[in-house]
Amino acid sequence: MATAVSPLAVALPALPPLAGVRLGAAAAGIRYQGRTDVVMIEVAPGSTAAGVFTSNKCPGAPVDWCRAALKGGKARMVVVNAGNANVFTGKAGHDACAATAAAAARLGDCSAKQVMVASTGVIGEILPHEKLTAALPALHASLSEDNWEAAARGIMTTDTFPKASTRTATIGDTEVRITGIAKGSGMIAPDMATMLCFIFTDAKIPAPALQTLLSKGVNATFNCTTVDSDTSTSDTVMLIATGQARHKRVPAEGGAMLKDFARALNELLLDLALQVIRDGEGAQKLVRIDVTGAKTAKSAKKIGMVVANSPLVKTAIAGEDANWGRIVMAVGKAGEPADRDTLSIGVGGTWMAKDGGVVPGYDETPVVAHMKGQEIDIAIDIGLGRGKATVWTCDLTHGYIDINGSYRS
Amino acid sequence: MATAVSPLAVALPALPPLAGVRLGAAAAGIRYQGRTDVVMIEVAPGSTAAGVFTSNKCPGAPVDWCRAALKGGKARMVVVNAGNANVFTGKAGHDACAATAAAAARLGDCSAKQVMVASTGVIGEILPHEKLTAALPALHASLSEDNWEAAARGIMTTDTFPKASTRTATIGDTEVRITGIAKGSGMIAPDMATMLCFIFTDAKIPAPALQTLLSKGVNATFNCTTVDSDTSTSDTVMLIATGQARHKRVPAEGGAMLKDFARALNELLLDLALQVIRDGEGAQKLVRIDVTGAKTAKSAKKIGMVVANSPLVKTAIAGEDANWGRIVMAVGKAGEPADRDTLSIGVGGTWMAKDGGVVPGYDETPVVAHMKGQEIDIAIDIGLGRGKATVWTCDLTHGYIDINGSYRS
Repeated sequence: MATAVSPLAVALPALPPLAGVRLGAAAAGIRYQGRTDVVMIEVAPGSTAAGVFTSNKCPGAPVDWCRAALKGGKARMVVVNAGNANVFTGKAGHDACAATAAAAARLGDCSAKQVMVASTGVIGEILPHEKLTAALPALHASLSEDNWEAAARGIMTTDTFPKASTRTATIGDTEVRITGIAKGSGMIAPDMATMLCFIFTDAKIPAPALQTLLSKGVNATFNCTTVDSDTSTSDTVMLIATGQARHKRVPAEGGAMLKDFARALNELLLDLALQVIRDGEGAQKLVRIDVTGAKTAKSAKKIGMVVANSPLVKTAIAGEDANWGRIVMAVGKAGEPADRDTLSIGVGGTWMAKDGGVVPGYDETPVVAHMKGQEIDIAIDIGLGRGKATVWTCDLTHGYIDINGSYRS
Repeated sequence: MATAVSPLAVALPALPPLAGVRLGAAAAGIRYQGRTDVVMIEVAPGSTAAGVFTSNKCPGAPVDWCRAALKGGKARMVVVNAGNANVFTGKAGHDACAATAAAAARLGDCSAKQVMVASTGVIGEILPHEKLTAALPALHASLSEDNWEAAARGIMTTDTFPKASTRTATIGDTEVRITGIAKGSGMIAPDMATMLCFIFTDAKIPAPALQTLLSKGVNATFNCTTVDSDTSTSDTVMLIATGQARHKRVPAEGGAMLKDFARALNELLLDLALQVIRDGEGAQKLVRIDVTGAKTAKSAKKIGMVVANSPLVKTAIAGEDANWGRIVMAVGKAGEPADRDTLSIGVGGTWMAKDGGVVPGYDETPVVAHMKGQEIDIAIDIGLGRGKATVWTCDLTHGYIDINGSYRS
């Protein structure tokens, strides 16, 4: 089993306190020994919340819980455990969520519906929630505004590095901060495949506006990335606004005064999404695919994702082979409007294929050099319209087989 | 590079002569040295023909050629080369097809539009058709009704075993024969990914009826199989009827008198399709997935193919892990109607998950034994309707990465 840190890892940024957020992590012994596996985050009274969840038709019990709880648009606590996903666990799964939320609500003096729960780990095993709730009182007593790194580490399953990002933005004349943590894609033990992301801001933003910003941002960032095309049953991105910053009132519909906030949020979402891809199972290269000239933006994204999920394209990149023939194949299989004779394929800034054939005498030297790097850029121009999209993936290597092809232990 | 024969290989069956078909293979040196790489098949005057081709939007020049040529419903010659796919080669690609067809037409004393051409191998390189046409006169002089094995071997690229199948059927009181050869999926050298299949019968069947039978048969066989989800630019299945058998006249619309013929054809198509999967890149296990209880048959097939293409499911099978949690995930990501709480998953005849949770106390012993075998059966019951489908795939192993992740040589 590969346990080394991903070669594409990035260092954890400095994470200053964020007004209205206190965090902590504890070891509840749910599955792992000798490490933290429960994270609690308490936010100020009045905090608003938004969430985006997996599109998988077989979601985990915590996803069901949060979807229902978020209808109120309010949150006071977040409790996350690693090691057990609480997925496909029937009524016991719901009961575990309810018991966890009730225990946290007592500690935080709030309604259970203001407690968001998330779980990541093995599918199909009953979550031993008594271990989890037993750890909560001491954990609650230890919460601190300086514990961001501990929280980022406590939600890891088989990630090889902790993931966090922070940005500032202005609303009116007031500077606000956005900080998020994420986990995902380091699938060293089989069965674990969940992307979780929790983002906080001290801005005071009504829940509807928060939800609009988050949905739009996730669509252009997390939803444009793929490691292996397999959509987890537990994917969760939450955004909670503590309202501690002193800026002009933001209307429910958000609008123009959130423009800079949206910019900063989208930057942060992309940063976290790419950190997850950088920790993709067995990943040796981060791949960016720019699709232009498609009929529509939606069509461009579909084509980009089909290329990003093609095993033949991904193994070629692992082999440092600028195999444009496989990219042509993948564009063609996407089922979107495409025409062999207007299609162009480039790698690292060099166009290799155009007008239905190879570009005569193109210089292979910079292409070969580019393919040896850690960050690969692929350009695909469909030549039919103005639709464009950018998606990201990683290569497909022996590491992926090692990580996912060994028997569950 | 793995060059050993697939552990899932089957022996070539005895292939008796088929009235109205003469075959041969020659070495034209297009890419490979020391082996045959051009196959010619001549069929009797009056032979009818049908074809099914790749759905890829960037098809190879030979696919364009055959689609146009088949409009007449007649064929006299088939010329296939291995080593160069003649894909994404612009006008030169079309010219190569036309020159090859013209040369074969002169030898066979027929119209160029009655010559079907197919190519498999590297994408994006101009086909050196002069080498090909130079080999045709001697090849034509050597044609014989006993050369089925030579033809099956001559169209291989990186297949590890030759693929053929033969069946008999009755039309009225007359016995007819159907024999087909195929190649595909042994992608040891990158860039080569094509499934070609040529089927012949001595029955006398009008082209429209032939096309209906073939389209229906391919949809239930080849189109229900996947190695890696990547649809080639050159996939071709052709069915040619030489009309040498003496049976009652078959009407243009086919109909009831072709029932037994359709049965035999479908058996043969499935046999060849599974031979291709058995030679899938790096395959160690042949996987059958039966989906029942879906809303519709189309929905069942979609769910089956999403499970069959899931890297996490395929790597789990490679690891001999009956990981039903990953199957739940794959069912859920298909986007088709599915309900976690009515879903059942079984492996090798043992139901492991039902009613939204693991089956309490199910016997793992037969499941573990089944997963160690070469043929894996997965059952998925959606529990919502009567739609069902069966699809086939292989596992995802280090062999796949070895074969496709090394630099083109």
